[in-house]
Amino acid sequence: MTKRIAILGSTGSIGTQTLDVVANAPERFQVEALSGGYNSKLIIEQIKQFRPKIVSVATKELAEEVKRQVSSDTRVLFGEEGLMEVAASTDADMVVTALVGSQGLKPTLAAIEAGKHIGLANKETLVSAGHIVTSAVKSKGVALLPIDSEHSAIFQCLNGENRPELAKITITASGGSFRDRTRKELEGVTVEQALQHPNWSMGAKITIDSATMVNKGLEVIEAHWLFDLPYDQIDVIIHPESVIHSYVEFVDNSVIAQLGNPDMRVPIQYALTYPHRVSTPTKRLDLAAIGKLHFREMDFDRYPCLRMAYESGRQSGTTPTVFNAANEIAVARFLRGEITFLQIEHVIEAALQKHESYADPSLDLIQEQDAWARAFAASIQF
Amino acid sequence: MTKRIAILGSTGSIGTQTLDVVANAPERFQVEALSGGYNSKLIIEQIKQFRPKIVSVATKELAEEVKRQVSSDTRVLFGEEGLMEVAASTDADMVVTALVGSQGLKPTLAAIEAGKHIGLANKETLVSAGHIVTSAVKSKGVALLPIDSEHSAIFQCLNGENRPELAKITITASGGSFRDRTRKELEGVTVEQALQHPNWSMGAKITIDSATMVNKGLEVIEAHWLFDLPYDQIDVIIHPESVIHSYVEFVDNSVIAQLGNPDMRVPIQYALTYPHRVSTPTKRLDLAAIGKLHFREMDFDRYPCLRMAYESGRQSGTTPTVFNAANEIAVARFLRGEITFLQIEHVIEAALQKHESYADPSLDLIQEQDAWARAFAASIQF
Repeated sequence: MTKRIAILGSTGSIGTQTLDVVANAPERFQVEALSGGYNSKLIIEQIKQFRPKIVSVATKELAEEVKRQVSSDTRVLFGEEGLMEVAASTDADMVVTALVGSQGLKPTLAAIEAGKHIGLANKETLVSAGHIVTSAVKSKGVALLPIDSEHSAIFQCLNGENRPELAKITITASGGSFRDRTRKELEGVTVEQALQHPNWSMGAKITIDSATMVNKGLEVIEAHWLFDLPYDQIDVIIHPESVIHSYVEFVDNSVIAQLGNPDMRVPIQYALTYPHRVSTPTKRLDLAAIGKLHFREMDFDRYPCLRMAYESGRQSGTTPTVFNAANEIAVARFLRGEITFLQIEHVIEAALQKHESYADPSLDLIQEQDAWARAFAASIQF
Repeated sequence: MTKRIAILGSTGSIGTQTLDVVANAPERFQVEALSGGYNSKLIIEQIKQFRPKIVSVATKELAEEVKRQVSSDTRVLFGEEGLMEVAASTDADMVVTALVGSQGLKPTLAAIEAGKHIGLANKETLVSAGHIVTSAVKSKGVALLPIDSEHSAIFQCLNGENRPELAKITITASGGSFRDRTRKELEGVTVEQALQHPNWSMGAKITIDSATMVNKGLEVIEAHWLFDLPYDQIDVIIHPESVIHSYVEFVDNSVIAQLGNPDMRVPIQYALTYPHRVSTPTKRLDLAAIGKLHFREMDFDRYPCLRMAYESGRQSGTTPTVFNAANEIAVARFLRGEITFLQIEHVIEAALQKHESYADPSLDLIQEQDAWARAFAASIQF
């Protein structure tokens, strides 16, 4: 049976790889809707290739430009309203949420309310509103399928197992572009250096988040909600090769791990075809050719952002929202050359110190605190 | 609910570890019957601790000796007849077949015919009579649960997966006690050197089989029957640390692996408690403390016994029986100092060359060819 999908963020790294998966098995999928941002050239190509019924772009001007170049079979919308239509107003069975940052929250919730299954690549959704999202997922009876390689790994390792017999999950971290530098050696690193991820080809924001370990922190909070686990059952280990994507440990001390070459198309496709597996246009894993896998303990002094993520997750309420929002602004400021790499963590720390956490926040309060944290993070001068 | 078990080979390495698992969770298990060989002192201890209804030892004399020292609640039998009673004439739900070598075949079949689930640690059973055993298992509707760490790993990795989506299994091999020696350096190695396995504490026969890679060959043939896979879907890789116990690859190039410290009590208990997991008295896996895992391609020139095992498996019929029987005699002769380490493979090769394979053999024919191979292997002079 054809699976009808909508993609929020189709022009980004996860979005284009999702369409690569679709193009590899066109008989399995039908693209109902796409939302892009500012890359009109790419979304026009995507419309011509996949013929979605609805498309949304960032602005009215871009929408006019796109409209002129595609068939009238595709409705072209824009802005937040357009995003919401792509998320919730199509016949899609599944919505892939591949937007970057906290803008993914509202459309993801709209998709859940509309009864769509979710392929979740936007981790900020669970970080900011895990309690709201998981409760909506439960009441609507939809599936929330992880697309992040680490969460997909854990999800795969739990296949056929009994949840009460799970003892712990361990998320692997490559260590990012600066994993072999000391904190001293992080002073004065450039944006270009920070953007060189050793294993994964990803967008700029997530690549910086890998280097600061904020990304791993967001994954820990995401895993807390996705797998309904307390933080002391979620570990992080440094594994430079990113071949073991994560693993789970059971009460009998048996460990199940998921491995593969670093290629997002495997976890993306798994979310699209679950509970089935079909062939992917990816390389097979050859452990003999790789030869060695390395592991070392996570160092919370070397990576204070991960420590702050655990603390934020444990404090819960609006704290993870502030952690995430402050980081988004700090990374943008770093990418613009306004602050140094190490100042990213100072921005987050200052926002967390200033913030007063509210328990069990509503969506409005989350958005208010998100806006506060952004403004605060933007205002910090060094 | 209490699980009632019988153990064939309770005084051997797997047998004692099975009783260790039982002793760790006495509320879960009841020992119905035990069979030991010649170690009367140990079986007397086991009878006193676990109070089985039936026990069998190797000879009439040993049976008399044991009878004198234990309560009359335990019937003490001996020989092949005693073994068959332990296997098939009790109220056991599951029979753990931990006998060494091809003597395990008949009692295992008797247990299956009696409707017992099987915890299979005796790999020669499937190697010699895979077609008979798997068909009996199917017609009786009993479970055939692997106890070998590699097969248990694969079995665990297949949990909740769809079999048609399996692409390949890979059995890991530590390389045994001589893994870092060239073939040249194998000339003149002693029995004592051969008995030093780097990772696992096992019986003498299986330790030698690890060094020759015969053990891995038997595991490949066992996996062929256990998981109903053609030989080109079964790979072997050298992994010196024995931390990844084996892994499976699916059509989407996703790999699921089972890991743990080398401790047989985990796979033994998994067979006893399947489909559940309960805590074991074993050490948790600490990948950061281990630091590195190594992998290298299997070398069939370095390990000709593994090549012969694949060839025997592919030829099928009575050939795997001859491979196994010739090896059993060759190992016994090596342990007695009659032949050198490298002559083990010459004995096997000579037997395979002399042998004419019969397809789809009956149990009688298997036993006849087994006896022929033993006599032939015993007669070879160098």
